[in-house]
Amino acid sequence: MAHNLEREKCEQATQILAEIDMDAWLVWVRETSQMADPVLELILGGDLVWQSALLFTKGGERTAIVGNFDADGIEAKGLYHRVIPYTEGVKDTLRSELERIKPGQVGINFSLSDVAADGLSLGMYRILTEHLSGTPYANRLVSAEALIQRLRGRKTPSEVARIRKAVEITENIFREMSPRLRPGLSEAQIYGMFHEAMDRHGVGNAWDEDHNPAVDAGPNKVFGHSGPTENETKAGHLLHFDFGVKYEGYCSDIQRMFFFGKPAEVPEEVLHAFETVHDAIQKASEFIRPGVLGHEVDAIARDHVKSRGYEEYKHALGHQVGRLAHDGGTLLGPLWDRYGDTPRGEVEAGNVFTLELYVTTKEYGQLSLEEDILVTKGGCEFLSHPQRELICLG
Amino acid sequence: MAHNLEREKCEQATQILAEIDMDAWLVWVRETSQMADPVLELILGGDLVWQSALLFTKGGERTAIVGNFDADGIEAKGLYHRVIPYTEGVKDTLRSELERIKPGQVGINFSLSDVAADGLSLGMYRILTEHLSGTPYANRLVSAEALIQRLRGRKTPSEVARIRKAVEITENIFREMSPRLRPGLSEAQIYGMFHEAMDRHGVGNAWDEDHNPAVDAGPNKVFGHSGPTENETKAGHLLHFDFGVKYEGYCSDIQRMFFFGKPAEVPEEVLHAFETVHDAIQKASEFIRPGVLGHEVDAIARDHVKSRGYEEYKHALGHQVGRLAHDGGTLLGPLWDRYGDTPRGEVEAGNVFTLELYVTTKEYGQLSLEEDILVTKGGCEFLSHPQRELICLG
Repeated sequence: MAHNLEREKCEQATQILAEIDMDAWLVWVRETSQMADPVLELILGGDLVWQSALLFTKGGERTAIVGNFDADGIEAKGLYHRVIPYTEGVKDTLRSELERIKPGQVGINFSLSDVAADGLSLGMYRILTEHLSGTPYANRLVSAEALIQRLRGRKTPSEVARIRKAVEITENIFREMSPRLRPGLSEAQIYGMFHEAMDRHGVGNAWDEDHNPAVDAGPNKVFGHSGPTENETKAGHLLHFDFGVKYEGYCSDIQRMFFFGKPAEVPEEVLHAFETVHDAIQKASEFIRPGVLGHEVDAIARDHVKSRGYEEYKHALGHQVGRLAHDGGTLLGPLWDRYGDTPRGEVEAGNVFTLELYVTTKEYGQLSLEEDILVTKGGCEFLSHPQRELICLG
Repeated sequence: MAHNLEREKCEQATQILAEIDMDAWLVWVRETSQMADPVLELILGGDLVWQSALLFTKGGERTAIVGNFDADGIEAKGLYHRVIPYTEGVKDTLRSELERIKPGQVGINFSLSDVAADGLSLGMYRILTEHLSGTPYANRLVSAEALIQRLRGRKTPSEVARIRKAVEITENIFREMSPRLRPGLSEAQIYGMFHEAMDRHGVGNAWDEDHNPAVDAGPNKVFGHSGPTENETKAGHLLHFDFGVKYEGYCSDIQRMFFFGKPAEVPEEVLHAFETVHDAIQKASEFIRPGVLGHEVDAIARDHVKSRGYEEYKHALGHQVGRLAHDGGTLLGPLWDRYGDTPRGEVEAGNVFTLELYVTTKEYGQLSLEEDILVTKGGCEFLSHPQRELICLG
């Protein structure tokens, strides 16, 4: 059981190297308890002290060259076929390993656009090029961005299991909190109640604690722009949450809408808005499958919203969820400049995305929902239970 | 009260810039919740999402150029004199700020030898040099290592207060655990008791949880090489701990020795070893003061150990303690190759060091103690209460 997740990710890295035809991948780190390359939690799940090389080949070899004090711990994880300890310096071993493998390119962890693929520090890069000077490999270093984006994006069974659990706990907390929500509570009070529940469930924040959950009471708040305020809930008003927890390193990210009143009292305008948002998410979920492009999925929901007479939402329909609530890679977003190439990416089986959007009503403010889905071979599966109607607290 | 620590560190950074005559310091980061430059927790205490520049000048100006969504949060911290938000891109603002300041050199965060000063990623460095291309500043980027080492090493009042509290909690846990220690407990059981106490005190681990506390029962264990085992405590044997907690981001690091027996039963050989280690720490503490070099302090203790007929300890006498248990910078160590230049550094007022060493007895294994000290203007102050005799559990 131990290190299942890391083993899955290591094996996946080998598959992806073959798939993108990259000869070798070198993860080059030191003192990772102080500054960790974001890939390490996927392929090691532990720390390295001295200068260390984790070397993956297209052929399936995984070699760890590490300081002698680290060697036993890394060996015990059973993730690397060979663990080569060193005492004096890593340089000679690293050079001779590369000589043996003779890679045409060596992927290293830098990226201009994706922080998750940019874990190599400038100092460590300079040390690496010094170590390799005089070898052909100093000029064969290329960005491993394509590998890392796939590696993070394709969730393995262990990763999906953790996200499922994070979603389940999030939904349980919403369920537990519902009966305690009433008119006259401030956003800050409600925020406090949610944090007590998170502590009780032993989960962390999926994003910056100050904004988790976002709690938006009443019609005059633009969602997402401030943390909870002294603003109070009121009969006849909507209440919005954007809430995510972190369970064993993996996140959920869910938006829910409540109404303070009886079902029969929900204004027509709000019903129309809710139905629009709900249906846009449904339509996108019916469309999404491996091979479609991110912006194509976004367009399905966006077109629906416009066809119902609303202004289009000013963000992407969905982002990937994993170690982070916003986990990078392909985005289900429109082809706007600020999203760069991310909406042009292909959706892959194993991706976990949010589907989220809002519309703005005239009298009752914004109405926004967000669900989490897993892309499957044939389409997608909802990880959250899609909200089908306003939760009425009347 | 809020952000006192960060304010102290920001002001200190300005002083150090003047002291080392560096015109400007540029902390250049993005999406820091995923990968944070280690200096950020000192000078910001929060996250930045888009490409962001924190720019310090020798003259005392502090400017933050940040994405518009981050601006309010950074403004609210009150640490930066000017917070300049951007929407489209950071490049123009960064260039015009540098044009205005006209620095002769701009320190950036890379270092071959110190991970704490190596927070700039290769991708972000390449983006920076692109942004600055065509300006004189692209060629004026230098390592800010000298600044960062001083900044981390000189603890401010708020930092010292947190370390004091971490030390106090560590000592309290030792005190609470003492009456519960008895022959026949396994190292793993004792480890579990300490972790329950840590949870109760609400503190984290000062280093890798697997080795904290190190628990070493009996004569046959080489300290520091494995986590707690099924090895059992026994009457007439020694018990050793290396234990540190993290309180509000700051660490303690303390070693203590217990004996299972009455004071009168402590073997002569053990008494002699204890006295040697205790006295070596005392002598080093009487010698250390601002201006002495790291290796000079180590030599005081090392010479004492040798004069008492023991082999010298195979590590440094002391390392700095702060955000990490091993906090980098000047080391109180011998001039051995593996320590590089770190023992040649000057001790400064405000540094917090461990004083730690072991000697090896013939019959009872190793005897090792560790205390934490604060370097003051005139010498040093013990933050821990030095262990004066074996704690006898008889």
